[in-house]
Amino acid sequence: MFNKDCYLDHVAIAVSNLDRAQKVWEDLGLTFNPVREEVPSQQVTTAFAHVDEHAHIELVCPINGEGPIQKFIEKNGEGIHHMSFMVPDVAKKTEEMIANGYKMIYEKPVPGANNCLVNFVHPKSTGGVLIEIATKQS
Amino acid sequence: MFNKDCYLDHVAIAVSNLDRAQKVWEDLGLTFNPVREEVPSQQVTTAFAHVDEHAHIELVCPINGEGPIQKFIEKNGEGIHHMSFMVPDVAKKTEEMIANGYKMIYEKPVPGANNCLVNFVHPKSTGGVLIEIATKQS
Repeated sequence: MFNKDCYLDHVAIAVSNLDRAQKVWEDLGLTFNPVREEVPSQQVTTAFAHVDEHAHIELVCPINGEGPIQKFIEKNGEGIHHMSFMVPDVAKKTEEMIANGYKMIYEKPVPGANNCLVNFVHPKSTGGVLIEIATKQS
Repeated sequence: MFNKDCYLDHVAIAVSNLDRAQKVWEDLGLTFNPVREEVPSQQVTTAFAHVDEHAHIELVCPINGEGPIQKFIEKNGEGIHHMSFMVPDVAKKTEEMIANGYKMIYEKPVPGANNCLVNFVHPKSTGGVLIEIATKQS
């Protein structure tokens, strides 16, 4: 059922304690990548576990209680932050979405993690879900 | 990367208008099953789109503005309602999770959609995510 035009890369979950959060998902049966990644630009540390062939969950934890994820947690509590989908051409998709009246966070895609260009569809445009779209740069 | 011990079956998204919500995800590039399902026990109509080999999103819309999803939307607005994972034995996993101190919605699994037995881990136990666990009945 794989759809190369749009498939789930990850569900990002904002957590305030990475070890404690990881244990919950391990107790459910998931296996995490032993390597955690720091993303200094976002002021977070992340832990990954695959949940399907391509999809994984990404636990996202603020570094030193600062940054955008910390603000999200202070406002909303811990929980799902966004869903991220791979699309063939995020620049083209951004133009299409804007033309169709969607509110995008950026006018043009910006560099994201894992050598991707990314953009976000604002939750006001999607029915309450912050949706990341991403394309691997060659 | 498929993990038969725990894999994502669906992400359920509470929506107040199924046609409008479906169009958002179609505009992103997803393809929906043309058949929608009514689940009278939950007072919802659902629409499915695959997002990976096994995983799909499930748009969940209240019927006649009533039922638990309607209450969720009134309290939280539209958005992600729960994530659902398939496990080999939901009864055994329920016992394990209770023994490990997790708050489960039901003491023992209950019948769910698609001939599954299901249970839920309370978001207070998981870091803000309502997690369904399910096992297909043979």
